[in-house]
Formats: sequence, C-alpha cells, structure tokens
Amino acid sequence: MPIAVSATLAVNEAITLRRRQGLPVLPMGFGEAGLPVHPVMRDALSTGGDQNGYGPVAGLRELREAAAGYWERRGLSTDPDLVVAGPGSKPLLYALVLAIGGDIAVAAPSWVSYAAQTQLAGGRPLLVPTLPAQGGVPDPELLARAVAEARAAGRQVRAVITTCPDNPTGTVASRDTVRRLAEVARDLDLVVISDEIYRDLVHDPATVVHSPAEFAPERTVVTTGLSKNLALGGWRIGVARLPHDERGRLLHGDLLGIASEIWSSPSGPVQRAAAYAFGEPPEIVDLIDRSRRLHGAVAHAVADRFRAAGATVVAPQAAFYLYPDFGAWRERLAAEHGVTSGPDLTRMLLDRYGMGVLPAVEFGESADALRMRVATSLLYGETEAQRASALAAEDPVALPWIRAHLDRLSEVLDDVGSEQPTALHAMAG
Amino acid sequence: MPIAVSATLAVNEAITLRRRQGLPVLPMGFGEAGLPVHPVMRDALSTGGDQNGYGPVAGLRELREAAAGYWERRGLSTDPDLVVAGPGSKPLLYALVLAIGGDIAVAAPSWVSYAAQTQLAGGRPLLVPTLPAQGGVPDPELLARAVAEARAAGRQVRAVITTCPDNPTGTVASRDTVRRLAEVARDLDLVVISDEIYRDLVHDPATVVHSPAEFAPERTVVTTGLSKNLALGGWRIGVARLPHDERGRLLHGDLLGIASEIWSSPSGPVQRAAAYAFGEPPEIVDLIDRSRRLHGAVAHAVADRFRAAGATVVAPQAAFYLYPDFGAWRERLAAEHGVTSGPDLTRMLLDRYGMGVLPAVEFGESADALRMRVATSLLYGETEAQRASALAAEDPVALPWIRAHLDRLSEVLDDVGSEQPTALHAMAG
Repeated sequence: MPIAVSATLAVNEAITLRRRQGLPVLPMGFGEAGLPVHPVMRDALSTGGDQNGYGPVAGLRELREAAAGYWERRGLSTDPDLVVAGPGSKPLLYALVLAIGGDIAVAAPSWVSYAAQTQLAGGRPLLVPTLPAQGGVPDPELLARAVAEARAAGRQVRAVITTCPDNPTGTVASRDTVRRLAEVARDLDLVVISDEIYRDLVHDPATVVHSPAEFAPERTVVTTGLSKNLALGGWRIGVARLPHDERGRLLHGDLLGIASEIWSSPSGPVQRAAAYAFGEPPEIVDLIDRSRRLHGAVAHAVADRFRAAGATVVAPQAAFYLYPDFGAWRERLAAEHGVTSGPDLTRMLLDRYGMGVLPAVEFGESADALRMRVATSLLYGETEAQRASALAAEDPVALPWIRAHLDRLSEVLDDVGSEQPTALHAMAG
Repeated sequence: MPIAVSATLAVNEAITLRRRQGLPVLPMGFGEAGLPVHPVMRDALSTGGDQNGYGPVAGLRELREAAAGYWERRGLSTDPDLVVAGPGSKPLLYALVLAIGGDIAVAAPSWVSYAAQTQLAGGRPLLVPTLPAQGGVPDPELLARAVAEARAAGRQVRAVITTCPDNPTGTVASRDTVRRLAEVARDLDLVVISDEIYRDLVHDPATVVHSPAEFAPERTVVTTGLSKNLALGGWRIGVARLPHDERGRLLHGDLLGIASEIWSSPSGPVQRAAAYAFGEPPEIVDLIDRSRRLHGAVAHAVADRFRAAGATVVAPQAAFYLYPDFGAWRERLAAEHGVTSGPDLTRMLLDRYGMGVLPAVEFGESADALRMRVATSLLYGETEAQRASALAAEDPVALPWIRAHLDRLSEVLDDVGSEQPTALHAMAG
C-alpha cells in the first residue's frame, strides 16, 4: 500500500527538482486545495491554544454540536452524541473500516486510500466500476452482482464506500444512482460509508448533492472535514456522523474504542477552530463560495484544454479534479512514445514535460487505462499573494500565471498528440 | 479493547457527577499532566496557523531537525531523515506495531494501550513481569524464556515495548536492567520500541534515564512527544526516531506508508510549535524543570500517605504516577468490604469515597492483584490559577487545595483500612 504515497511523492519531488533547474512545470498531481487560511480561522486556532487537555475521545461537545448543525442545514438531522471527530476524515475512515471488518466494496476509480485502508485492516477491497459521469458510486447493479459473487466465494463483504462529490473524477452522482446504491446496500445488508468531504465545493450552487444517508439512514455513516472546503488539510480535522439506530450506536462504541487506542482525540485548538467553522458564520460561507467559483473556473478551463487536444473528459461538477481519457491516442502514443500503459503515459508527461498527474491505476483501475487524475488546485499560484488574487478574481483564468499554465498545458498536449513530438522539454533549458 | 477507555471514562464521569452533587472527590484516574500551556507555546501555535498544507508525511523538516537535536543532547545521535512525527506518540506506536506485525512482548504492568494496539493490529501481547522497582522493562530473563516458549508454540514474537520512565509505576529502570533487556532483544532478534515520553520528568535531575538505544542502537525505535513534559496532550504531537541501519530504513518506509494511509501528517500549526519546543529554548527548559519538581513533590507526598496507611508502594522517581499495593489488606478488605479483586477495590473506592484510580488489571496484571495506578497530576487544582500557583510554589504540598486532597486521601485510606469503616461518603452529603 505505500505505492500511492510513493507515486505522489515522486511527482512532487520531480516537480520540485525541475523548478530548481528553471524548467517549466505543471503541478497537477496532489489533491490539495491550494488556498490561504482565512484570518478568522487563524484567530479561532489561537483562541483554542489553551485547549491542552485530551478531552473526550469523540471530540469536544461544541465541535460535535456545530457539526450536527452543519448536517441539519443539509437535511440530515443529527444527534451530537453520534458525531465523532478525528484528526482528519482519513483516520475516521480507517477506524470505520477496521471496526466494520471484512471486505469492502469501493468504486473503480476511487480515492486510493479506501483500498489501501481496507488492506491495512486485513480485508480485501472489492472494486466495482461506476456508471458514466456517476463517479464515486459503484454501479448499483454491478455492486449487487459483485457482492453476491464474492459472498458465494466465501468472502465477508460488509460495507461499501461512496464519494459524493467524487475524487478523482470531479463528478456528482445523480439522485437516482445514489438512491439505487442505498437500496442495494439495504438489500445486501451493507454499511454505507459516504465520504462527503467535497460536498460544499460543487461549482454550480444549483447542483444538489445527494447522500446515501437520505435513502438508507439506518446504515449510512457520513464523513467530512475542513481539508477541502476551507483548504485546511494540514490542520487535520474531520467528523463522522453515525446512523441513529442500534447499528449506529454499536458502531459508535467500536469506533470510539479504536479511536481511543490509535489517536486519543483530535488536536484541541484545531477542534475549537473547527467548531467555529462548522457554525458557518458569514465569512466562512463567503470563503467557500469564492473557493468553489475559483475551483469551477479553473477545472473547467483545464477540461477545455484537454478536450481541445483530443482527450475525452467528463465535465467536472465539483472540487478541483478531472479525469481525462487518452484512449483515443493509444496507437499514436505507442508508436511515437513507446507508451502502452497509464503509468507509462504519466511518467512520460513528468519526465519530458514536467507535468505531474496520477495514472488511473493509482485509483484502482487497470494499468492499461490511459486515464489520469488531474488536480487543478495547485495552478492558482506559487505564492500566498497569487493564491489570494486567484480567490478574489472575477475571472481567475485571465490571471497571467494561471493563463500561462493553461497555455503550457495546451502546448504539452499538442506536442504529445502530434505525430512528430518536438520534445518541448529540450527547448526549455 | 474498548474496556480500558470505558474504565477511564467511567472514572471521569463518576467523578464529574459527584462534583456536581457537591460530594468530595479524589481525581487520580487519568494520566493527564494537568498544567497550563506556556504562553510561548500558544504564540508558536498562532504563528504556525498558516501551515495549512499537508506537508511531508514524516513531518516538517524543521520539526524533524529539532527533534534530532533533542535526542543529540541526550546522547543519541539522530538523522532527521529517520525521524517521523505523528499526531501523538500513540498513533506512531500503533503504526510501528502494525508495521512490525506479529506478537509483541510488553511489561506487566504496562500502559494499557500497548496490548490493545497489538490486538487491534491482529497480534497477541506477550505479558512479561518486571523486576522490583524496574517498571516498564520486562525482566530480561523472563522475557528470554517467554519468547522462547511462545516461539516453540509457533507464535511470531517480533518486538518488545519498554517504557522508561514508567507508566504506571513511576519508576525508572536501572542501566543494568536496560542493558540486559537490549542484549536479550539482540539475542532474540526483537525490535525494541522504547516509549520515552516521560524522559524529561524525572524528579531528581541526577536520575539518569537509560534508553535501550544506547545498548542496541541497531534495533531500537525511540518515541516521545510533548504530552507529558509540556502538558500538551490535547495538542497531539509525537515523534519517533528509527534505527540508523538497514532495518531502520526498511521500518521507516513501512511506517511512512502506514502513516500516509491513516493520518497523512500531524497538524501543521502544532508541528511548528513542536519544532520550537524541541529546540529547548530557556523558557521551555525552565517550565519542564518546574513541572518535574511539582510532579515529584506531589507524587512523593501521595506515596507517603499510602505508605502511612499501610500500603506497599515503591518510591516514584519520575512522572506523576505511583502503583501502591494493598495485598497486605486482602483479608480485611474481603471481610469488611466484600472486596476480593482489584476492580472490586477501585470500584468501592470510587462509589464510597469518590476516589478515582485504575486497577492493576487495566495494565495487564491479574484481576486478583490489589494494586492500582494512582495518577497525582489532577490534584494540582481545578482552575488554571490554582495549577499555575502549584507550578510556581516552592512547597506545592503546602497549598491548601493540595493539602486538602492529601488529607482527604489519608482519611479515605484510614477508613478503608480500619476494622469498622465509617463510610465517609455518607458524611459528605
């Protein structure tokens, strides 16, 4: 399971090295929101500095109540006593996977850590493809079939993980897909772990995000955090909302037992700041609003460049990812570049052009797939000032440094796709 | 494994309830340092508020370099590239246990989470008694025998965990014990995980803490953090120092892989503050100095009260724990109170007198043992002002609120030990 880390690290390191050498780079490998900390959050963190006791394993009451309010405002009535905070939603997901045990169904493609966590916990991931433009949610029909087959083969499949909105595709599964997923989960008696960390980052506020918790409230655990909507990944805070029935109460107990043995409690000052943020005061609502507009503008502009170059790409609806497919270039890539797999392609993009992206294989798809995850949020600028300008801009893609990245992207893609690549990397020295 | 949490939580909850009812309490169940945050640490945390990127899985370089310096000053030369930071030393210990795999030898008694973490990771703890006053280090001879027997029975024993200074006994194993432990570990090819989180809290600065890393540097992982020496448990930061050889490098890779899938990185602002603290500027050195004097004064005063009442107790040398034994009262406890086990005894102390302590069974000993862990650090006061006064006092045990706790303790112990207990709890209403 350390492969995914290494891939990300390798991309980051190669890009750092090229930067030092003065070579052009396109940093699109790492899924970090790439925006500054809001000053009110810095103040809230400072105020929380006196929070040096461990406090409850589940997190401070003020944080659990604020998180409950956050979910209430999204139509999910929530008991603060069934909320558990952790140092990021990642540890919460791991603890849930460990508490539930057995094998876990995940979407293909999906965020690499679901499968890795399942393996760490001693289970095996059951990879189930998604429907077109319905990223993050296993095709309900294929899920039913895959679980039945796995169970017939003696495997214990106990849960399914969904991601709405989705990483790596940037798409939002429809109400119908989510509802059918929830029905299949009920039929098969699966716990649904619904990772909704990108929920507030839909590009168009009219896009409704549906949670499996609407359709199967008795079996759905919802997780979220502040890493993406407030760009506070490095602060490490997440929350989980457990089902409000006997199953939820049992899982809550197991989750707390595991949490108490792995991390004790999330960082106190960060909990205090998070309690403030989940209360959604106007300046936080405004920041998220501006963030999602920026993410949308740049993700769409990047998608346009891929499309113009000949790649297939589903229009992203949320977050800062897209998932273009170069299947149409398969023969040309083999002939001109000796590229026959996804990792070949992304390695070539990195080595020749300094373009950092991750191949589909890192997300549970076949190594043959010529798809890649493109993260667009590190294009907002290299300095705090540039990123702040991007956030404030009416038309961020017109900013010179973002425009330059986009133009470089077109240049790279045109070169890769041309029948006689000029190896732009040589020109750049 | 959730038992230990429940025991601690139950103690805390019962004590909170009694406080609300105006009944007297003796809160000695929870191992929290119970001291205020130093203002320079609050400032350092605020300054780190802009640290919102995930940063390296191993932690920021400035933190790893500061931690390396901390160990260098204690005679352990350290490569910052073999330091890994985590959100507390507890998650680092869990990840190490998971990375090493198999069964793990731990001292009996020892901190409850070692055994629980081993079980969570799919292994079984191998409980090995300690020598008198050599808490935290399994008796080397018994360890050799236990590992040989376990291996003969087909078990994979791959590591041993040591705690110097020790929780729950507050003792510091001698150079000879630590050296012999290291030799046995080498003979048996065991990794040594040395939990040194109480290292800076020896009561007498002349007490030398020896690390297995001095004697078996090729196989010893050292962990520490700021939870105890700076009372920053709730901030959640720890560091691990891996061996500087091939074994260490391999373990380092596995540890990072696991860390990346469970917690990503420790909280950025907390890392920045920790980098400051591990640099050991004068005000931090002074705080730790005053803390250890306070811990020593109160722990010794509490030990004296237990001894005066007739319990056997080894003089504590570090931290804020002691581990008295009421074995001498076994018959009287059975006759007067119907108490025949450690949990019976601590339950009676809690229910009748509001005295919260944990029975030996929580630390891996037999339920028959009439020993208990007494944590003395929550006696420093109920308010920030009282705790600050305790830290500043030349003679903290003379402070009225600490003196009152000590007197209440004597009263309770005398009542328990008398042939006709007066049930002081009834008088308190």
